[in-house]
Amino acid sequence: MKIGFIGLGRMGAAMAANLAKAGHDLSVYNRSPGKSGPLVELGAHEARTLAEVCQAEVVITMLADDSAVSNVAFSGDGLFASLPKGAIHISMSTISVALSQSLARAHRDAGQLYVAAPVFGRPDKAASASLFIVAAGDPVTIDVCQLLFDSLAQETFTIGTEPSAANLVKLSGNFLLAAAIEALGEAIALVGKAGINRQVYVEILTSTIFNTPVYKIYGDLIAQGRYTPAGFAAPLGFKDIRLALAAAENLRVPMPLGSLLHDRFLRLLAQGGENLDWSAIGGLASQDAGDAPRGAPRTTP
Amino acid sequence: MKIGFIGLGRMGAAMAANLAKAGHDLSVYNRSPGKSGPLVELGAHEARTLAEVCQAEVVITMLADDSAVSNVAFSGDGLFASLPKGAIHISMSTISVALSQSLARAHRDAGQLYVAAPVFGRPDKAASASLFIVAAGDPVTIDVCQLLFDSLAQETFTIGTEPSAANLVKLSGNFLLAAAIEALGEAIALVGKAGINRQVYVEILTSTIFNTPVYKIYGDLIAQGRYTPAGFAAPLGFKDIRLALAAAENLRVPMPLGSLLHDRFLRLLAQGGENLDWSAIGGLASQDAGDAPRGAPRTTP
Amino acid sequence: MKIGFIGLGRMGAAMAANLAKAGHDLSVYNRSPGKSGPLVELGAHEARTLAEVCQAEVVITMLADDSAVSNVAFSGDGLFASLPKGAIHISMSTISVALSQSLARAHRDAGQLYVAAPVFGRPDKAASASLFIVAAGDPVTIDVCQLLFDSLAQETFTIGTEPSAANLVKLSGNFLLAAAIEALGEAIALVGKAGINRQVYVEILTSTIFNTPVYKIYGDLIAQGRYTPAGFAAPLGFKDIRLALAAAENLRVPMPLGSLLHDRFLRLLAQGGENLDWSAIGGLASQDAGDAPRGAPRTTP
Amino acid sequence: MKIGFIGLGRMGAAMAANLAKAGHDLSVYNRSPGKSGPLVELGAHEARTLAEVCQAEVVITMLADDSAVSNVAFSGDGLFASLPKGAIHISMSTISVALSQSLARAHRDAGQLYVAAPVFGRPDKAASASLFIVAAGDPVTIDVCQLLFDSLAQETFTIGTEPSAANLVKLSGNFLLAAAIEALGEAIALVGKAGINRQVYVEILTSTIFNTPVYKIYGDLIAQGRYTPAGFAAPLGFKDIRLALAAAENLRVPMPLGSLLHDRFLRLLAQGGENLDWSAIGGLASQDAGDAPRGAPRTTP
Repeated sequence: MKIGFIGLGRMGAAMAANLAKAGHDLSVYNRSPGKSGPLVELGAHEARTLAEVCQAEVVITMLADDSAVSNVAFSGDGLFASLPKGAIHISMSTISVALSQSLARAHRDAGQLYVAAPVFGRPDKAASASLFIVAAGDPVTIDVCQLLFDSLAQETFTIGTEPSAANLVKLSGNFLLAAAIEALGEAIALVGKAGINRQVYVEILTSTIFNTPVYKIYGDLIAQGRYTPAGFAAPLGFKDIRLALAAAENLRVPMPLGSLLHDRFLRLLAQGGENLDWSAIGGLASQDAGDAPRGAPRTTP
Repeated sequence: MKIGFIGLGRMGAAMAANLAKAGHDLSVYNRSPGKSGPLVELGAHEARTLAEVCQAEVVITMLADDSAVSNVAFSGDGLFASLPKGAIHISMSTISVALSQSLARAHRDAGQLYVAAPVFGRPDKAASASLFIVAAGDPVTIDVCQLLFDSLAQETFTIGTEPSAANLVKLSGNFLLAAAIEALGEAIALVGKAGINRQVYVEILTSTIFNTPVYKIYGDLIAQGRYTPAGFAAPLGFKDIRLALAAAENLRVPMPLGSLLHDRFLRLLAQGGENLDWSAIGGLASQDAGDAPRGAPRTTP
Repeated sequence: MKIGFIGLGRMGAAMAANLAKAGHDLSVYNRSPGKSGPLVELGAHEARTLAEVCQAEVVITMLADDSAVSNVAFSGDGLFASLPKGAIHISMSTISVALSQSLARAHRDAGQLYVAAPVFGRPDKAASASLFIVAAGDPVTIDVCQLLFDSLAQETFTIGTEPSAANLVKLSGNFLLAAAIEALGEAIALVGKAGINRQVYVEILTSTIFNTPVYKIYGDLIAQGRYTPAGFAAPLGFKDIRLALAAAENLRVPMPLGSLLHDRFLRLLAQGGENLDWSAIGGLASQDAGDAPRGAPRTTP
Repeated sequence: MKIGFIGLGRMGAAMAANLAKAGHDLSVYNRSPGKSGPLVELGAHEARTLAEVCQAEVVITMLADDSAVSNVAFSGDGLFASLPKGAIHISMSTISVALSQSLARAHRDAGQLYVAAPVFGRPDKAASASLFIVAAGDPVTIDVCQLLFDSLAQETFTIGTEPSAANLVKLSGNFLLAAAIEALGEAIALVGKAGINRQVYVEILTSTIFNTPVYKIYGDLIAQGRYTPAGFAAPLGFKDIRLALAAAENLRVPMPLGSLLHDRFLRLLAQGGENLDWSAIGGLASQDAGDAPRGAPRTTP
């Protein structure tokens, strides 16, 4: 199968590498140049233009945000203009429900096929081909994509025929992660100010009722106040909470915990937290309590 | 070792049974009679009075709340009056930090020993001796208790020498559970109103980033709107959130998510939710969205 | 001075009438026809097109929302295309900070002048020419407009040279009003459930520390649960809170009370409150308490 | 009428002075000595003991909190023990609903009469006898007290026969004041970070829709970041919010804005705001926005 891959950031590069290793006829493209070297070594072709990378049966986009995806999709030589009729666009970026709905309409109008297939997992999971994929769209089209998904993920889940459903699931998942971070932040602020060893506390929690990597990873980061380097930067986390709340607003679903998270991120960014990991919102409760962990990097300059 | 056990509710009865099966010299007591039959069959002795059950090397209390523990501790023939000098009181109930501190002081004054050892786990875990115990107090005393803990739990964690630290860890754990319920409730309200199958959504979540029993159990209950029979009743959940917030207030630790949970429980109880499982707060987000799950029992009469 | 007036809703019609009565050379326009009769009787000219109403020294827009103002401003025969160079656009609608900034730029580029001058006051105040106007823009231009403002308002306040500052002040004012409604709603829920007469309570409050029309008007509405007919409809209130929060987000100012109000409005609308007065969010606290005022119209169908 | 007055703080001393000036036979008492000099000069008698000040037809208490009132009421030579049968206790302090209910019961049992009559107004209003009084209790008893109230207040409002109703009204009033402070704090943070002059903003607001002393006073304090000296100290404000929320919890009335205020005060106190005016919670929104007013005293050391 002839595949075009657009977006060679940390996630995209790792995913494209797995497709190349799996022997697919792969062409790759990144707006800013200089990212394709290792992929070319694995046998991929470097496309010079959007139009070129679109000469494929399937094009995958793995980009940072709505703006980047819109540019790639709607620009003069972009997806709608360049993708052959009957070809498939697999959108794997974390984008808004509204943009995903626009993409679905526009591809339909252009005689192209569209599947939304966002992923759960950090770059290390992308590298080891052990992501989780949540896919939505026409079942026959998803079937065609399954072979590719198998090169990228440990498992793929299908959540209906409306592509934007997959995007909503992804956004709600990031909401749930941020909620766990906030909860851990408040709990750690509480026991920490009581004089209990934060690290031991997290070990107990994650050996018992919260025996799962999410609580272990974020519990450790918060207990240690270690928010750099950012595994997932605060502005990206904020973006996803905003997109989840935008979808909720359109559907008229009040989410008070979502609003709390929104305000936490806004505060973190207002105080200079641009380069911190998104788990840094978990340090604000201790800051409020006048009791930031010793040795922790300050969130304010 | 001669053991007295006070409190034969669902948790206490299952725990006492495990002690009896382990061959300890066990005497049991419950304020309201008629609970000790199965334990007597296992070889336990039924004490008729508090004073009688206190004739032991170790007395364990497993009671519903601060009020019940206070009564047993401070009444005329209660623990302080009746427990021999040098005997140990193991308080396994979920009680307030403040009461635990009072008990510690009073036992010290009375020449008795005191360990706080609250547990994580529902009655089925108590029955299978696979609870988790979080213990705090004098290390030598805890060592003496370890044999008993091993008959009750799959693992025991020690969190310092100040007994109330264990109570705070337990309360913070219940805060974290309620936070997960609220987060799930909001996420399920969001995807549910978007037309996504709630049950499939929970399956995806709990097969991927939240692959842990807590999210599985509560996600299922909320997706199905199934809040009866109560595994852990809403008033008990509310009690624990209040105790966590009371400790936080004393320590001056603002917990905005804790406050949100407080108000959720208050609303649930104001609307007649006394007999529902505490996960019923996870249904309020869908109620706010004007979109309660079909077939779900109404939370209001 | 030759004046064009666009937007003849309840507010706009009353304001235009005052300009006509003051003897200005007035031309009026409304997208949907049939609104100009009474104004024509007062001597106004009915313009048939946007282009026609723009043949003036000053054009005033008094429209419902961003969308209506954008249409009038950016359409082919709209303000930018039709307003003479050097003419003034006075934007008196409650619009977003972002749109006001766009209008300022576009008018500058088109060689036209622009003043933002939103108003405080309901239709009765518009009719009696006793609105308050908050104006921002170039001081010389505002001076020219002052004569018109004097026909519309009891007082005009100037808040700087950046027009969007006036819009932000207006939005923040509506935020403060909604905050007072929420506070009253919670206080009335509290005393009402305690058995205190809600109406007497409001009378005491507004005879003492809150002796001001805002608290009197909204306190009465909430105490009586009287949310129809809508003086200011819930969707409009929601719109303004959203615009205030959008400005706050851009400026990175977390507003937790603003978020609470956002979620209150979202819930009201999700439950069918489209046609209620915005003060109906003040009834949600009593609803949460399981204690809606007797005889009150239900907020849900 | 023979009157005893207990509590000579800033409020109590000013109120007692007005009673003395009105020619009442006044005996005064304060736990810590040295406060009665100016009152003795006005003709009051200084009582040396609680028992002595209770030899009166009416005893007024004006004390700081529940604890002070409890001590005076329940101590060995306190109100219940020393007040003659048929004498009246007028409780004017801001105390909890629960304590007021306890006082009502205990006075009834002791054959004494009890009226709750808390006040609105700061010390300057106490000095000028222009407080507002909210009274509740037996109507005949209140009639007897009216003459005294007229020496203290510009107006007295009666709110039923259950004394604690007056305390709840008072607490709810302080909740409303704190809510206005928070709302102002967020609005000022928003416009301030947009570059609008905070002081001019407050002047506009309070010349228009919020033309009332509450918004004027607190708006000015927040705009200027001037929180010392404290007119009403943050710990007292926190106390009243806690008492309002305690009453709400007992009545099962969720108050999310109340919870927000609770957390704001807790944070202010955690960060060293003990000696600041309670309006200092209005500065936290600007702190969150990374934009505290220039020249403002820092709320943290």
